[in-house]
Amino acid sequence: MEFDLEKTISILSQTPSTLAAMLNELPDEWLQKNEGGDSWCPINVISHLIHGEKTDWIERVKIILSDEKEKNFKTFDRAASIQSNGDKSIKELIAEFNYQRNQSLDYIKSLHLSDKDFLKTGVHPEFGEVTLKQLLATWAVHDLGHIAQISRVMAKQYTHEVGPWINYLSILTR
Amino acid sequence: MEFDLEKTISILSQTPSTLAAMLNELPDEWLQKNEGGDSWCPINVISHLIHGEKTDWIERVKIILSDEKEKNFKTFDRAASIQSNGDKSIKELIAEFNYQRNQSLDYIKSLHLSDKDFLKTGVHPEFGEVTLKQLLATWAVHDLGHIAQISRVMAKQYTHEVGPWINYLSILTR
Repeated sequence: MEFDLEKTISILSQTPSTLAAMLNELPDEWLQKNEGGDSWCPINVISHLIHGEKTDWIERVKIILSDEKEKNFKTFDRAASIQSNGDKSIKELIAEFNYQRNQSLDYIKSLHLSDKDFLKTGVHPEFGEVTLKQLLATWAVHDLGHIAQISRVMAKQYTHEVGPWINYLSILTR
Repeated sequence: MEFDLEKTISILSQTPSTLAAMLNELPDEWLQKNEGGDSWCPINVISHLIHGEKTDWIERVKIILSDEKEKNFKTFDRAASIQSNGDKSIKELIAEFNYQRNQSLDYIKSLHLSDKDFLKTGVHPEFGEVTLKQLLATWAVHDLGHIAQISRVMAKQYTHEVGPWINYLSILTR
């Protein structure tokens, strides 16, 4: 599929309500358990999404569209992104993500981006030159990746409860 | 995490509304593209979930709890499960899944299952003896697996649009 702004926004728009439907009514145990070690639980993933909304995606869009000569992105601090939840409930966190995402999308829509804009570039700290269109496509795929991750992390809590069915459930052995 | 009926129902209950939030407003292109070959698109996955609700999960619960001597499960026909959508829209399909799932959960709740029931067994065509508790845990994990699958299938439509970010997006290379 080729990049298209409307199609990209259709994915970005649904993520907060998908996460709300998926997680808001679940007991804490599903939300606070991870895949072991320093891996992330579903609550951590929501914190990470909020952090990205506040510090990363729109920030990078602005760098690409700016008139500055230097268009280097800052490195996104993945570890910092899951701190400072305080004691917020899942509903509060997802409501915050929803608010931030709406702000982000309102901003994107206000730009009235053209095909020419999509080819403008910034400089990624690791990959070098990237286009606005690659950034926006990545933003949507990043959402979908984290929805899949949350599903996987929760599924794994039942790894020992499914018995021999583990052979059919590839999500448990990934 | 140990098996618990309430916790299992909390996952099974959220799946229809999660899928509705995720898919109902998306353009058809996201819903009808697969991962290549005879892999499934998101629409196929919903058809499969409806089929499971109608022919598989509750059917197997009933076999386990029956007084019959023979407690063999029928083989679940995965290929058949994605046929016969007719021309239903995504909203119609998810509404149908929602209806069937509610029927299934109403039935499960009406059984007032006890710890003793959870250890009752049926015979899986491939694995042999399995318990009711393994069946119910598998049902929930199966939902989560398909939510992850739908996320992955949609994400992959943008594989060529994310540019060098493919290196960070493990969902695209799975």
